[in-house]
Amino acid sequence: MDKNEKLLIRPYLRTRSLVPENQESPIEFMNTPSIPEEYFYKRNHFPYPEIQKNAFELSIEGEVQRPMVFSLQDLLSLPSKEIAMVMECAGNKRAFFEPKVFGEQWEMGAMSQGVWKGVSLAELLKYTGVTYRVREVVFEGHDYGYRNDLNGEYRFARSLPIDKAIHPDTIIAYEYNGKPIPFKHGYPIRLIVPQWYGMASVKWLRKITLIANTFNGPFQAIDYMYYPFKDNDIGKTPVTRINVNSTILQPHDLAQLDTGIHTVFGIAWTGMGTISEVEVSLDQGVTWEKTQLYQDLNSMYGWTYWSYKWYAEKKGEYVLMARAKDTYGRMQPSNAFWNRKGYGFNAISSVRVKIE
Amino acid sequence: MDKNEKLLIRPYLRTRSLVPENQESPIEFMNTPSIPEEYFYKRNHFPYPEIQKNAFELSIEGEVQRPMVFSLQDLLSLPSKEIAMVMECAGNKRAFFEPKVFGEQWEMGAMSQGVWKGVSLAELLKYTGVTYRVREVVFEGHDYGYRNDLNGEYRFARSLPIDKAIHPDTIIAYEYNGKPIPFKHGYPIRLIVPQWYGMASVKWLRKITLIANTFNGPFQAIDYMYYPFKDNDIGKTPVTRINVNSTILQPHDLAQLDTGIHTVFGIAWTGMGTISEVEVSLDQGVTWEKTQLYQDLNSMYGWTYWSYKWYAEKKGEYVLMARAKDTYGRMQPSNAFWNRKGYGFNAISSVRVKIE
Repeated sequence: MDKNEKLLIRPYLRTRSLVPENQESPIEFMNTPSIPEEYFYKRNHFPYPEIQKNAFELSIEGEVQRPMVFSLQDLLSLPSKEIAMVMECAGNKRAFFEPKVFGEQWEMGAMSQGVWKGVSLAELLKYTGVTYRVREVVFEGHDYGYRNDLNGEYRFARSLPIDKAIHPDTIIAYEYNGKPIPFKHGYPIRLIVPQWYGMASVKWLRKITLIANTFNGPFQAIDYMYYPFKDNDIGKTPVTRINVNSTILQPHDLAQLDTGIHTVFGIAWTGMGTISEVEVSLDQGVTWEKTQLYQDLNSMYGWTYWSYKWYAEKKGEYVLMARAKDTYGRMQPSNAFWNRKGYGFNAISSVRVKIE
Repeated sequence: MDKNEKLLIRPYLRTRSLVPENQESPIEFMNTPSIPEEYFYKRNHFPYPEIQKNAFELSIEGEVQRPMVFSLQDLLSLPSKEIAMVMECAGNKRAFFEPKVFGEQWEMGAMSQGVWKGVSLAELLKYTGVTYRVREVVFEGHDYGYRNDLNGEYRFARSLPIDKAIHPDTIIAYEYNGKPIPFKHGYPIRLIVPQWYGMASVKWLRKITLIANTFNGPFQAIDYMYYPFKDNDIGKTPVTRINVNSTILQPHDLAQLDTGIHTVFGIAWTGMGTISEVEVSLDQGVTWEKTQLYQDLNSMYGWTYWSYKWYAEKKGEYVLMARAKDTYGRMQPSNAFWNRKGYGFNAISSVRVKIE
């Protein structure tokens, strides 16, 4: 063991469950614009599927004029594009809901960002054509298994409204950060849906079906719905676009710091437009001050860095709050919208620190 | 990449801070009697020190009859013993205090167990002799640096009362699990103090000083003291022995489970005697049922496994509680003893689960 290795200090994925594998990205890594594949968060509904590489094919059927089967070679030969974007699990920050909700207790790491490369679904649909009846597109993965709440086995499948499905940035991806997609993230191909929560980006894609009605699989009609009430399903609505949100990366909650200048910094992101402003408050939200934003204008789906110089001269306990706004006027609320399955948490971020 | 590697699922250390390095053991690994070195929790007060292997020596001085310097070879040539034991950070479970306390927000993983091999300090003191004045023994590590609350640099140093220091199981260790101690855990030698919280087991040991009075270094007289009050130091007492404690390893808090039989299991440990009983309650602590214990009678400093078969026939939400007792009659309290620096949390363990 050489000295560098023995002294190497690094963060790791943060385990929530092992089967299925659910692990958070370490927030210590979110100061990099593209998360290395080994630190990308993992969120699975089932054990990993068996994929026969040579037998791989993707079928497109249903409300099309010519059902077709594409090989991986076919996909690689078509015009490609790269999408740099935040991927966020709908359950990210679930652990912060009060009252508590059941399910994986994700903290702030059920999200990552990086660059996906693939073919627009719209490009493929040029070959198959579509019928005038089409309303939704159903994406089915190779992963399947049992659920606690239903009998029998289910495959992971999700639909998109046709308009979102044919957006040119909705792609069938085969690369992540310049390399084939890692097995655990959907090898050989997965759907990539910018601006929607991660459940839409179906991994290990095997079949695409255009339908004339509404898809009602359990991952569409039971899970990934906002249920406002604990004991009934009144008012349920589907989880779709990512809410405007931010995370304070530094300082950590309940940290003890020296007097002096501290750089408060973090990330902000949204599923509509881009981040227009991030503000911080040191007085429980009475007054807010602007932070410095660092945006990559070529990457409108990525996260925005922000920072604020804090002159902490007086010893004592402080609460630092941060809130983001997007170009559609959405702003992080003081309290997250509570819902029974715990999706979309985006309350104003805050950390408590002690200057000593 | 072969298939086994690509499908390997494992837990990781859980990062609390990188400089100094503070990482928890994954509780998913606590079902093994000896934690592999790469999963042993890491708790440091300072950046890692520089250790010159060839220049290594340990001096014993102060209230001795013959001050001496021991080389690593000297230590390896003396009679050795193996100590299998739980090591627990005094701040383990700090995150669960209410009201919250500042400092690293350790959850349940700031503890590990394994086998240390080395020489009893009592054996070394046969060579140096001691004076009749000796009251405490001060252990100094190679690690040093700045503190937020004081000016200047400090070395990590701790003392033990002479009676604990000369207990035959207080050893100068040079192996962990049959191999040289990993650098990050104190290579080449560290003190090992069974039954006391981990701060006593000084890493990268360089000097031992016997003293006739009371040691007042900041890691003895400021840190690792229980302060019962938020705003003053009245009633402060030193952190020493590990409190009786338990952790529920399965199910996880806020898990969703099927109806049917579930094995509730976990670990229990103590710094006085051994675990005599672990009970669980399904009715908020009104009634308690005994669990099955699995103890290694050759390892009185190790943790005890316990398990309980739970017939979960009715859907709904449940709270599972567990409490341990030791052979000295100590029992986990309903509420942990709140103290300003957040040490020794040992309230009854509980998890909320939903049967669906």
